[in-house]
Amino acid sequence: MLRAILNPASVAVIGASSDTLKFGGRVIRFVVDHGFGGRIVPVNPSATEVCGIAAYPSLSAAGGPIDVAVLAVPTRFIAPSLEECGKVGVKGVIVITADYAEVGAEGKVRQDELVAIARRHGIRLIGPNCLGFINPHLALALTSSVALAPKPMPKGDIGIVSQSGSVMASMITNARDVGAGVSVAASIGNQADLELCDFIEYFADDPLTRSIAIYAEGLLDGKRFIGAARRCREAGKPLVIAKSGATEAGSRLTQSHTASLAGAHPVFEAVCRDEAVCLVDDPERAVMAAHVLARFGAPDGDGLAVLSPSGGTVAVAADRVIRAGLRIAELSASTAARLRQYIPPTRPLNPLEFGGLATDKSFEVNTEALGWLRADPNVAAVLLAAASAPQVDAKIKRWGEIALAGEKPVVLALCPGSLVDRGRADLRALGCPFVNRMDDAIGVLRAIVDYGHALRRSRPNVQRPSAFGDVKAVADRLGGGTLTEHEAKSLLAAAGVPVTREAQRAPTEDLAAAAAEIGFPVALKVVSRQVSHKSDAGGVQIGLADEHAVRAAAATIRDNVAQRAPGAIVEGFLVQEMARGELEVIVGSRWDAQFGAVVMVGLGGIYVELLGDVQLALAPVAHAQALAMLGALAGWPLIGGVRGRPRLDSDALADAIVRLSWLAAELGPRLLEFDANPVLLRRAGEGLIAVDARATLA
Amino acid sequence: MLRAILNPASVAVIGASSDTLKFGGRVIRFVVDHGFGGRIVPVNPSATEVCGIAAYPSLSAAGGPIDVAVLAVPTRFIAPSLEECGKVGVKGVIVITADYAEVGAEGKVRQDELVAIARRHGIRLIGPNCLGFINPHLALALTSSVALAPKPMPKGDIGIVSQSGSVMASMITNARDVGAGVSVAASIGNQADLELCDFIEYFADDPLTRSIAIYAEGLLDGKRFIGAARRCREAGKPLVIAKSGATEAGSRLTQSHTASLAGAHPVFEAVCRDEAVCLVDDPERAVMAAHVLARFGAPDGDGLAVLSPSGGTVAVAADRVIRAGLRIAELSASTAARLRQYIPPTRPLNPLEFGGLATDKSFEVNTEALGWLRADPNVAAVLLAAASAPQVDAKIKRWGEIALAGEKPVVLALCPGSLVDRGRADLRALGCPFVNRMDDAIGVLRAIVDYGHALRRSRPNVQRPSAFGDVKAVADRLGGGTLTEHEAKSLLAAAGVPVTREAQRAPTEDLAAAAAEIGFPVALKVVSRQVSHKSDAGGVQIGLADEHAVRAAAATIRDNVAQRAPGAIVEGFLVQEMARGELEVIVGSRWDAQFGAVVMVGLGGIYVELLGDVQLALAPVAHAQALAMLGALAGWPLIGGVRGRPRLDSDALADAIVRLSWLAAELGPRLLEFDANPVLLRRAGEGLIAVDARATLA
Repeated sequence: MLRAILNPASVAVIGASSDTLKFGGRVIRFVVDHGFGGRIVPVNPSATEVCGIAAYPSLSAAGGPIDVAVLAVPTRFIAPSLEECGKVGVKGVIVITADYAEVGAEGKVRQDELVAIARRHGIRLIGPNCLGFINPHLALALTSSVALAPKPMPKGDIGIVSQSGSVMASMITNARDVGAGVSVAASIGNQADLELCDFIEYFADDPLTRSIAIYAEGLLDGKRFIGAARRCREAGKPLVIAKSGATEAGSRLTQSHTASLAGAHPVFEAVCRDEAVCLVDDPERAVMAAHVLARFGAPDGDGLAVLSPSGGTVAVAADRVIRAGLRIAELSASTAARLRQYIPPTRPLNPLEFGGLATDKSFEVNTEALGWLRADPNVAAVLLAAASAPQVDAKIKRWGEIALAGEKPVVLALCPGSLVDRGRADLRALGCPFVNRMDDAIGVLRAIVDYGHALRRSRPNVQRPSAFGDVKAVADRLGGGTLTEHEAKSLLAAAGVPVTREAQRAPTEDLAAAAAEIGFPVALKVVSRQVSHKSDAGGVQIGLADEHAVRAAAATIRDNVAQRAPGAIVEGFLVQEMARGELEVIVGSRWDAQFGAVVMVGLGGIYVELLGDVQLALAPVAHAQALAMLGALAGWPLIGGVRGRPRLDSDALADAIVRLSWLAAELGPRLLEFDANPVLLRRAGEGLIAVDARATLA
Repeated sequence: MLRAILNPASVAVIGASSDTLKFGGRVIRFVVDHGFGGRIVPVNPSATEVCGIAAYPSLSAAGGPIDVAVLAVPTRFIAPSLEECGKVGVKGVIVITADYAEVGAEGKVRQDELVAIARRHGIRLIGPNCLGFINPHLALALTSSVALAPKPMPKGDIGIVSQSGSVMASMITNARDVGAGVSVAASIGNQADLELCDFIEYFADDPLTRSIAIYAEGLLDGKRFIGAARRCREAGKPLVIAKSGATEAGSRLTQSHTASLAGAHPVFEAVCRDEAVCLVDDPERAVMAAHVLARFGAPDGDGLAVLSPSGGTVAVAADRVIRAGLRIAELSASTAARLRQYIPPTRPLNPLEFGGLATDKSFEVNTEALGWLRADPNVAAVLLAAASAPQVDAKIKRWGEIALAGEKPVVLALCPGSLVDRGRADLRALGCPFVNRMDDAIGVLRAIVDYGHALRRSRPNVQRPSAFGDVKAVADRLGGGTLTEHEAKSLLAAAGVPVTREAQRAPTEDLAAAAAEIGFPVALKVVSRQVSHKSDAGGVQIGLADEHAVRAAAATIRDNVAQRAPGAIVEGFLVQEMARGELEVIVGSRWDAQFGAVVMVGLGGIYVELLGDVQLALAPVAHAQALAMLGALAGWPLIGGVRGRPRLDSDALADAIVRLSWLAAELGPRLLEFDANPVLLRRAGEGLIAVDARATLA
């Protein structure tokens, strides 16, 4: 269906006019001027001809079949026009008009009406609040914005989808500026019917599309997005995304802009990592990365070669590469030997300054060094930073030819502004990707190296762990709302995660007896659903050595809580063994509105808060995935052992992550959040123990 | 002197030729073609005329005075030509030729010869291994590179200095591309004589220069750089620097490129922060930031307004702003009220999407919103991200006019590529700064906000602390080399930093008696200059409760050290009180080759290593500076108290930093490095204690 809409044989413009100050006038003008080869149907009740084409008073008068129609009519006529489209069997309708869900509840009602009409007739809607689409291969610009319809439209193999029409204009222009072309570029606005994933799936199957560049504000259906990403991966088509809403400020804007709920960005990032989606910082860079990936594919490693005719430029590039966490490759002996024939012994070979050589073969070395470095088996991708140099134009052209003759990604950075405009024109003509600023070179390399790494990871073998209890039954017994520590731990225990020996007692019961049974020393904790941070309220006493100490501690806790959390109901006390471990960690889960159950792990105590050093993944996860999450923590050396510190039980921790992920996956939306915090991690082979836990059931 | 050289009345080109394939031919051609108005003296033994100007067989034949000469002769004639320049009283000589100190020791010898000749004659040298300079105000291009001599050269108020000629070409071109101009741009190469700071000082005094953009690889004299930076600050001229050599890969390159030793980059960063030098990531961005600062000055706060006609673009911008650690301002009520007249209630006001308004005043609101937001007292700087929109060209032009009519920095980001080329041309004509990528907008804003903050900090009142002993006398007694813990602590104690009670004993002496005197429990540590990490070698035993435990521990330590550090000589044992505290911190000092004594502080134990969370400053520091260093640590909340944690003794820690900084400053290059690690920090009012220390004296 979408194929027919995006590759129509016939196009109608309802509200077409010869006046390009009107929006229906611009739409029909672009269709006609670009030379669309299919049937063009202008509809206007008061004109017999528009832009030299016979016009019809109504769509019915024109007669079908019509593949796609643009509704360029005042808002009040949108719904009736849509009904008319339905009657003549139009397949797809573009609603450019704004003032729908993005302005609030009342607009949402109007939008839902449109969708209802469309569904009734089997019409698919693009928009509302969008700018239409272009298909340069058909010379078709179905848009009201001149910015989307440059002449000529850049024909090529990048599929573009954007929730923002204006951002799409920038993506198309930037594509053209760097010599990239577009298969189809679609602006999808409020996604009332056809949504981002419809277009991703279209591009995954479209033979003209080699890579996909997306600007997204919010995903309507996380699971579907994952499915679409997998389809792209199976089709061998890189999916590159820039997504706004990463911060609260950005998120508030996306809501008012295209009625998008941004969702938790760290979860989106985790999904991109696990599903091999190439994530970049901004929409223009998405186009650049998609272009590089379409031409060269993904790097098959992380070793970079960095070179420039200018020593200054290559020094800047090397600093930026290293600071971005990228790796400069160690060259093989044969590459080194070949380079050393021409490069003075005082110069490093990678990063390489190849300018100013005292040889009559200077031009050849300047151009061929790119190929020599790329051919090195240790090099996965190349950053060549152009700079002012003799015959720079001829060199840039030759670099483009050499780059395109190979399979490994080459990022040409043309930083010296208009000084290398001639080189840009040559690269555009060749179809060789380039960028204009070092930021883009580094950003593209960082993104494609990560993408290549994601592609090489094998799909995990996710299996339900053994000795995993009936957590649903436990949850049923617990009911809903905020759980007490003891209740939360009963879920953990059912999932097979070790918890402290403990007993909960009513305020009037004998705490000392319970303590004696557990064995001294013990900890005593207040039980109160109104006290979410027990320590802050003075509700925890530890290291209680005997019965007397336990009774005294209970009194202290009562006083503290009465003072610091007035009104909190003390339901009882939790008597607990004093557990020991080497390191505090947090293992938790969240229910994400877009993607569902998510498991997380981080270094415990204050470090998660201060440093945000956590790793996330969609639940459930496999043991190998859990280990990879641990390895990706900045604090991993604290677990893995470093500078004389003991190696801790990473296997036990990975197992706890797996179990908590299954707990979250099995309870689904019932488990809103779960935190086992702290979990005390012990030395390798000695396991771990969860000392405290919090949970909220729906 | 430098003024006369950079603004010469007469210019000689030794080796001038009419053949522009020759380097002397290009130099004279650029001088003539740009229309330099002063005296032009081509020197060529075998021509009577070059480029239509009478040539002389020798400089002596031409006769003086000559302000500046370029030596465009083969390497073997450089020294004799320089001698000849000396004889006729040339003030400055440019040596473009390479193959000097940057190729190693032998080249350094040849370079030193040139300097000796120059000194003998009172000549100042630019280069060698440089590309000369341009002075667009005099229409003078003294360079062999066409890239430095675009026609017309961009005349303006940014002073440019670069160690790399090729990078300078890119800076000049990027300046021209964004409508900025140059007062003088000088490429300084190996800085054999005239160095970076000579040019900074020149620009600080030059009435045509309003801001300074620098690409540096290494500083020859850190103290002089600080002096030059202060001179710029006093002159009210922003000094913007991009420096390579931040990483080891970059540093190796700068050495082979312009014979520059990069020095420790974190120290350079600390100097820039303290001396109000605006630090940016790359040379092109240095020009952009210098342009913004020249037009608008520095922001007087950190509150940003972010706006765009496009909801998508402003969402991307807002995310980037927040992720860069910048702050979006809370608007005042009156600004909000004014905006709300036109902006629908569902949209936030800052960041602001001002496109697609349903008002007949849409154009006015689209253009004037910039001025309204800038006028808000809570707004210190504005980021306006252009996007495809109706009448975008007219809007961009108007934004430029509004921006230039005010005093607060406005960064116009023109991301939609060639779609807004017309707007670019208008902004260039207006002289209004702009950038083309969001990265540059964010990078410039981050840099100028930090720069503004640095300008507002008052100069610290650095005073020698009371009760600070004669550390030089202590150092004299200790001699040189790696100190033992006990020796290092004697320096700390002399500086007035509390250290553990302890006694060092020879292997044969009675450890138990020493322990009894200190009071049980004690710690026992091996004393051996060969063991740098005592714990790793099993050379530390703690919590020894009685004499028996002390004797057993000594035996264990002997065994451990014999096994793990074979060959290490055990000089004795250190018997030490068991000290307590809430948090481990490190306070240290380093002797930096460029800047001298540096003091550092970080969270102790593994976190400095893992997270690199340290703060540096040149020694000595004032108490207020030391407190500011603590506040800038990522781990500051661990010291300042957070989530029920106690507030620790930040005053005592600041005092220790001050004392260590004075220790480092007074010992100067004798103290190569000092680490008090760990220092146990206690609760507010309870002080701290240094438990271990290492030091190396020269």
